[in-house]
Amino acid sequence: MNAQDVKTVQLNEHSKVRGSNLMEAFQNRQSTRSFESRDLSLQDLSDLLWAGNGINRPESGKRTAPSAVNSQDVDIYVCRADGAYLYDAVSNSIKQVSTQDLRPLFEGNRPTGAPVILLLVSDISRYNGYKPENTEANARTNSMATLDAGIVSQNIGIFCAGTGLGTVPRASMDQNGIRKALKLKDSQSAWLNLPVGYPKK
Amino acid sequence: MNAQDVKTVQLNEHSKVRGSNLMEAFQNRQSTRSFESRDLSLQDLSDLLWAGNGINRPESGKRTAPSAVNSQDVDIYVCRADGAYLYDAVSNSIKQVSTQDLRPLFEGNRPTGAPVILLLVSDISRYNGYKPENTEANARTNSMATLDAGIVSQNIGIFCAGTGLGTVPRASMDQNGIRKALKLKDSQSAWLNLPVGYPKK
Repeated sequence: MNAQDVKTVQLNEHSKVRGSNLMEAFQNRQSTRSFESRDLSLQDLSDLLWAGNGINRPESGKRTAPSAVNSQDVDIYVCRADGAYLYDAVSNSIKQVSTQDLRPLFEGNRPTGAPVILLLVSDISRYNGYKPENTEANARTNSMATLDAGIVSQNIGIFCAGTGLGTVPRASMDQNGIRKALKLKDSQSAWLNLPVGYPKK
Repeated sequence: MNAQDVKTVQLNEHSKVRGSNLMEAFQNRQSTRSFESRDLSLQDLSDLLWAGNGINRPESGKRTAPSAVNSQDVDIYVCRADGAYLYDAVSNSIKQVSTQDLRPLFEGNRPTGAPVILLLVSDISRYNGYKPENTEANARTNSMATLDAGIVSQNIGIFCAGTGLGTVPRASMDQNGIRKALKLKDSQSAWLNLPVGYPKK
């Protein structure tokens, strides 16, 4: 894609009150693996991404998800029929990074039919002192990055549980295909993908 | 400790409705690093542990936190002034595993004064096909275990954010001291600790 082709979708402001009481959300947390084909609304997507890793303190830019030494290393990619997008919490928008439908790269193992698949990618170059050649230190940093990815994943899980949406975190995916399609750097790793949609009854 | 000395504290049934609306919990999610010394009530602790990794579907034993291939690999240890306890979701109780106050092992870096420190320990021997000698496979499994620990951590984080409690996930701790005090097996790793309490105003 050329820079002039980049499509940006402005998200809505997130809902201030939505969904269930907190304890009911924990009660309803479960893994959903089969979805209706109907799409999420723009408000659904806006709320989902904000809950996942949005900015909840604009004055400091801090997030709904903590991260090791506030590295904010986890990015959320939004994969849907019309392409893949990167969530930009600062501008509250998603920016297209591929015009391809990448969902089949996540669905090989056990297709869910979800309209949206969120991909959690950590970039360890955002950690202080990152050096590409220091493989031993980077392996340690990756264990921080996976903790951070798990944290964002459960923000998404609890949001879905409280709003009638379904999801499931999955580690299985076509890693090579995804790296290539999203042009991930060596410092970036795709840790989890989460199909999101309305559960099939 | 001898078996006959094991102290068990029965937890209360968890609250069905408590705390804020879901979106308000995400709005209030932040890292708290300084706590009042007053203890959590038994109900606080019961709700906290259930939200963290309790059973929300008694018929299947499934949890508020998903885990890779439902391995349920993450245990929560409760460290407080009167010793350390292991949360048993099935019996909804905590069982004493040490009579020592282990909190100093987590507080060396940046003391918080929290009455309770939760420790998340993953046991990869709960994964199918675990073999102690297969170090390469175990390193891969550890990246699943850290994702799972991050997920439990954020259940705790969102619960606290929605109920006026404070917490922060920390990777820093005295690993050797903790392994020894809790007699962790080689298959067990301590990934995160979370002080929990009432935020100091």
